[in-house]
Formats: sequence, structure tokens, C-alpha cells
Amino acid sequence: MTSVGIDAIEIWTGKLVLDLPNTFAPVKGEDPEKYTKGLGLETSSFPDVYEDIVTMGANAAKNLMVRKGLTPEDIGRIDVATESAFDNSKPVSTYIAGCLEQVFEGDFRHANKGERKFACIAGTQSLDDAYNWIKAGRNRGRAALVIATDTALYERGDPGEATQGAGAVAMLIDEDPDLVELSTEQGYGSMDETDFLKPNQQFPSVDGKRSMQVYLARMREALEDYESVAGRTHPDLFEYIPFHTPFPGMVRKAALLGFRHMTRDTDIEDDLESEIGRQPREADFETWDDYEEAIRAYMDKLKTTEEYRDWYGRVIEPTLDISSRVGNWYTGSVHIARASALKAAAEAGKDMVGKKLLVGSYGSGAQAEIHAETVQETWLDEIEALNVDEQLAARKEITFDEYELIHDVHNHEKEVEVEELTQPEDEFVFTGWGRMNERRYEYVE
Amino acid sequence: MTSVGIDAIEIWTGKLVLDLPNTFAPVKGEDPEKYTKGLGLETSSFPDVYEDIVTMGANAAKNLMVRKGLTPEDIGRIDVATESAFDNSKPVSTYIAGCLEQVFEGDFRHANKGERKFACIAGTQSLDDAYNWIKAGRNRGRAALVIATDTALYERGDPGEATQGAGAVAMLIDEDPDLVELSTEQGYGSMDETDFLKPNQQFPSVDGKRSMQVYLARMREALEDYESVAGRTHPDLFEYIPFHTPFPGMVRKAALLGFRHMTRDTDIEDDLESEIGRQPREADFETWDDYEEAIRAYMDKLKTTEEYRDWYGRVIEPTLDISSRVGNWYTGSVHIARASALKAAAEAGKDMVGKKLLVGSYGSGAQAEIHAETVQETWLDEIEALNVDEQLAARKEITFDEYELIHDVHNHEKEVEVEELTQPEDEFVFTGWGRMNERRYEYVE
Repeated sequence: MTSVGIDAIEIWTGKLVLDLPNTFAPVKGEDPEKYTKGLGLETSSFPDVYEDIVTMGANAAKNLMVRKGLTPEDIGRIDVATESAFDNSKPVSTYIAGCLEQVFEGDFRHANKGERKFACIAGTQSLDDAYNWIKAGRNRGRAALVIATDTALYERGDPGEATQGAGAVAMLIDEDPDLVELSTEQGYGSMDETDFLKPNQQFPSVDGKRSMQVYLARMREALEDYESVAGRTHPDLFEYIPFHTPFPGMVRKAALLGFRHMTRDTDIEDDLESEIGRQPREADFETWDDYEEAIRAYMDKLKTTEEYRDWYGRVIEPTLDISSRVGNWYTGSVHIARASALKAAAEAGKDMVGKKLLVGSYGSGAQAEIHAETVQETWLDEIEALNVDEQLAARKEITFDEYELIHDVHNHEKEVEVEELTQPEDEFVFTGWGRMNERRYEYVE
Repeated sequence: MTSVGIDAIEIWTGKLVLDLPNTFAPVKGEDPEKYTKGLGLETSSFPDVYEDIVTMGANAAKNLMVRKGLTPEDIGRIDVATESAFDNSKPVSTYIAGCLEQVFEGDFRHANKGERKFACIAGTQSLDDAYNWIKAGRNRGRAALVIATDTALYERGDPGEATQGAGAVAMLIDEDPDLVELSTEQGYGSMDETDFLKPNQQFPSVDGKRSMQVYLARMREALEDYESVAGRTHPDLFEYIPFHTPFPGMVRKAALLGFRHMTRDTDIEDDLESEIGRQPREADFETWDDYEEAIRAYMDKLKTTEEYRDWYGRVIEPTLDISSRVGNWYTGSVHIARASALKAAAEAGKDMVGKKLLVGSYGSGAQAEIHAETVQETWLDEIEALNVDEQLAARKEITFDEYELIHDVHNHEKEVEVEELTQPEDEFVFTGWGRMNERRYEYVE
């Protein structure tokens, strides 16, 4: 059977940028390092007045199709993953297909369109569905378009406000992919959790502390489940480990936990023994709490070791660059982490062909998924085609007052008229509501 | 490769019933036959105060698991299809898994949970995803649980009000299925349409006339797409053709169009020639309108022929029985049409082993999907295990005043305190909202 994976990706950022240490922190009366050091964030992307999840997704998808020379007939499936949907029945994929049909010859009349929702993990779930569809022999030679698009907003004043962000990632899933092949093996950690949810509301109810615990617990279970089918993992096996990144600080915690898990009973644990001792074993403790405390103490020492710091700098740090400049893109987050890592590899001139990534996706509510990816021969062309740095540099910086106005524009409960802050060009824009309350879009040159 | 399909189904209806000709029509000042003859509906199901999409879905799933002797570890995937979700981030499948874990030993910790939204077609899309997951070799011997659950409500006074309904269908998708095998071949007809949508609103904006045109157009395209991979269809090939049934009257139109399409250039067209002439051919007409008019005239004659009436009575009518008694269940609708047909076959003592169904799913927005199913050897045991008649008979009939109260109870914008009209027993019930606005559930004996 031929290999299946990601053939190409395109990233589209919201056009506005908020500087967290220099604009947000002073107004909030906070130490700027709370954002830069604590959360690991420098700036966040926001959508301009004429942008939303449809325009961002359609613009990313259009660029992808143009670059890969695709027509609508080449696409057999369009799935959109989002937790920012504005319609309880009609999927965002139909709006995006409608946009694309404005600029491409032909149509997506025989493509299966859909929408998935599960907090931030639905992008990866849609990737999996596309992979399975091809492996099941139902694609008739066509590729799948998976679009993860979100506008991640919190109530103003919510502790999560600094982690906001907005953007879309479009991915083409195909046979003999040009970027990465996906593993058949997957691991899941999934339980019914009340950590982050949006019951009949646009902005989330969040239990921040619980949310971090649940992320780590589900990720550990997913890794164990993955190992049960794919065999033991080891730090040396993976060139990069992109995680879902609600903010880089969260990934620091996950990475340490992952490293500890992967090194247990390995040469690395042996090498570190003289410096920090061996890892605590559950059997040696009378209570779970004692064991947990010992594990925490071990990890406090582990994170100061040269072995860990070197691994973190090589394998994790490069996944966080884009995220630190755009904030949380929810469903797109883990996919910009992958892009960030491969972009860093390209810039460093690393030979990545045949190298492996371990990808850790997560959605509150809560579920983690782990799978592996193998970098393909043509990866460098795909990564060098990304114009994400240009897009990020071209964002218009907004003042705190402008930020508040933009937040209101995208609040479903408010009706505010605000002038656009940037000039759209060669892209899809939102033009207003139609007679059935449908959102309407046009392509502007 | 082993066969994959539906191993078992369970149906759960809302506990209340509204009589359309005798309770609804008089208050509306309408001729009862508008509902019974025009729409083809007798009664509608509604959820009692303690019911919602989670309880109905969890109750159907629990009954399915008990009957098939399953534990949570036997399930590798739980997908919920709904257009009645009450959370913009956390999927209904996590709530349902949480319910089931209250009554079963073990948990769904390593099952992939998800939620799909595309009006009424998401149930079939979830079925397909489950099929693909197994065919892709990722299921590790486990089955998938697909749950289509909806509370289909319109604004009071909306023309769609008479087509409301509420219920859930749980389906187990597995290798070597006991009920029907799904075809690898599928056909899609899918375009961006503004026929029925719910932009930031619970109740739909509907263009009734456009909605019916779009249903027929997309269904025709799906059938042509299906034929392009599976070969020509013919009325003799399929024992039943279950369609998505927003109301039985809609299926009457779709069936006539399907029969006309399937019989073109066949022995049936030849046999009917002396009575009603041959089908109009596009090439013989100067304009598309003239051709369309001729087709309509041909179909008006076709529907009065004995051939058509006999086929309709055998192949379509049996699919509509449950629907005429419960109304529109949105994502569950086409799946109760299949159940209705197989139940009729069982009651008539028909030998269905190896017989084929052609299944036509549809979601506004808009997309149709067509695939075939092959009835399996053990189908009769599965169908005889359904207790749908008992459930329907046990529903409590409500007055118009009670109907209005119940409509308000399930309206997300209203806060009303209404006493339950029935007594829950051995089932999951909604018990109120938690501190993060999460909905909470309990199993009552």
C-alpha cells in the first residue's frame, strides 16, 4: 500500500498583531515577563474587521491550491475543524468551498464536505479521517483538503485573554505525500472532563489549573497507548516533537513529562543516575501521593540536566517559534508547531529526509492523540514555499484601544461598526449578512 | 479484506408525543390532511424535561452495548452526529461517554471521541468515518459507536413546526457486521447552498421551496456520482431505498425522480412506452426550461402508472413508517428509514439475506450521499431485537399547551421551570447545570 500523509500546508494569519509585553502588559499593570517568560508569548494575531474563520481558511486553501496547481476536481473531501463555528447546522466547509468556487474554474460538486468539533484536537481528527478515507480506497485518486481555522477569543479580563490568537492552517492529504507520511499507529488518552467548554456561549468557561492537569494526564495516556501499538518511544527516535501549544509554557511541562516517560529504563536514565538518581518506581511507595511527590522532585532535577536542556533545545524549542508570535490558534496550533519545527530545520540546513516526528495533539473536554510522521524527500521545497515570516511581519500592530474594538467586532453578541485597519488585497473578505442571516463573502483583487 | 458495516442499531425516542391531525391542526386552524396526506406525518416525538441529545444518545448507546454484551474496552471510537449541540467546544460524545461510564465497568480512555456537524447528513458521514477507520486497519479489533441524536425544533409558527421531532439512533460499526455491509462505492452531490441554516441561532432560517429543490438536485448528482463508480442502478437491484426523511412527502418527490432516473434506457422505460411515452431527452429540446417542463409532464404520468405505484409501495413506503410517527430526527432520520424498511421486511416474513439497499442521505447547506448496503445473514435477530414499537406506544401524549411549555423548556434562550410529564426509569437524565455551565447527567433506576 502506498504511503499517505500531508502533501502540502499553507498558513494564513489574522492581519492584526497585539504586542503582549509592550502593549497588553502595561494596560493590565502586569510584568511583561509574565507573558514572555511565563507563557512564552511575544505577540498574538487577530483578525481584521473583514476576516473570520471562513476568510482565513479559504485564503489558506486558495494559496495551497494555487501553489500545488490543483483544480476543484482534484479534491474529493473538504473537512474543516473549528471550535469557532457561527452556524449550528451548515458547516464552514460549504462556505469555504463557495469562496474557492468564486476564483477557480470548476466546482467541488462531488467532494464530501464536513466539519469536526472537539476543542483543539479536531484538526488532527480531520487529518486522520482523510488518511483513513484514502487507505480505505474511497478517494478515486483525489486528495483531501483539511482546514483548521479558529478565532480564539476569551472574555475580556479572563486569565486566558493573553493566550488569544487567530489563523488558519490548510493541509492537503494525499497518497505519496511531499511533506510527511502519517503512521498507521495512533495512541489516545480521552476522558469526559470539565476543564474548558463553551456551553451555548462564544467565549470559554475555563478551569485553568484543571486544564493543565488534564492536558498532561491525557497526553501521558495517549503516549502509553501509542507505545502499546508502535513499541517503546525513545528521545533519539524523533527529530522534533510538535505538541498542541495553547501557549509555549504548557509545552514546557508536557515536554519534561514526555522526556521522563521516554527515558525510563533506558541508557539515558542510566547516564543521569550519578547526577540525579534513578526515576522513582511506583512499587517503592506506599501511597500514590508519595510517589507523585517523588516524581515531581525527580523532574525538578531532571529539567536542570544538560541532557534534558540539550534535548529540549533541539527537539521542542524549534516547535514553538510561530506559536510565540501568533498565540493560540486552537485547531491549527499543533499544525503550526509542526511547521515551525520543519522551518527551523530548513533554516539550519538540516537533512530531514526519513527523519521522524512525534506529534502530540490535544483538545480540552478532553482528548490527546499521539502519532508519528516520517519526513519525505521533497519536504524542503514544501517548507521553503511557506511565506509565514512575511505574513507575520506584514501584520498591522494595534493599540490596546484598537484591540478592544476588534474584540467587540468578533463578539457574536455585539453589533459594532468599526472601520477596517488594513486594506485587503487578493483575498476573500466578509461582506455582510444575507437575508437568511447567512454570512457573505467576496474575493477582492 | 473482511466486510465492514452496521453490526447493530438501537433507537431511542423522546418520551412525549404530539398528535398532528387531532391536537396540532385544530389549534392552528388547519385541515388535518395537510399533515397526514400532505406531509405524511401522524405524530411527532418530543423530549421530556429531563431529556436532551445527550440522554437520548446515551440511552440508545447503553441499550445497544447491553444487548450486544459490550464493555467500554470493545469500543475504539465514539462519534456523535448532531445539529443540536449545546457546546461550541466540548463534543457531545464526551458527555455520552461520561454517562456510559456511570453504568459500565471500565472506561473509554483509549477511544477516539468526536463530533460531526453537517445538518442531517452528519450521521452518515460518521458512519463512513468509522468504516474507513476499520478499513484503514486502525481499529485494533475494536468497533465504533456512531450516535445520531437531535432535537429538531423550529420557531413556533414557522412553516416547519409540524415537521419537528426528537430522538437518537445508536449504531455499532464493526467487521463482519450482523446487520448490513456498507459498499466501498459512494456518490456525492454537494454545493454551497443557503436553504436551511442556523447562524448563531438555535432554530433554523429556512427557505422551504429552495430547500426542496436543493434536496432533489443534490440527490440526483449523488446518484449520478454513485453510478460513475458502481455502475448503473436499476429498480430491481434494491429491495428498499431509505432516504433522509424530513417528512415523508419529501421522499415521495425524491422517489419519483429516482425511479425516472433509474429506469431511463431500461426495459421498464420500454414497457411503459405504450402507456406514457418515452422519457424526454435533453437533446430534443431547444431550451433547458422546455426540457424540464417535458420531464415534469412525463413524471406526472409516471407516478400514476401501476409499475411506479407498485415499486413505490414495495421499495419506498415501508421506509416511512417510523418517520410518520416521530417526525424529523435530523441526523437520525435516514437511519430510522433503514430500520423502518427492515422492520417491515421482518414483519412480512421476507427473506432479506444478501438483498441490497440503496441509502440516500442528505444535509441542507447542502450535500447528498448515496451508497449501497448488503443485508447480512443475521439481520433478522438484529431487527427483531428492536423495541421501537413499544417505545412509541409508551410515549405520553401531550396537549397543545403542554407542547408549548416543552418547546420553551428546550429553547436555549428561555429559562422556564416545568414539571416532568413522565417518570424516568432505568435511564440517563439531565439533572441541571454545573459551576462552569456544563450540563450534568445521572442514571436513575
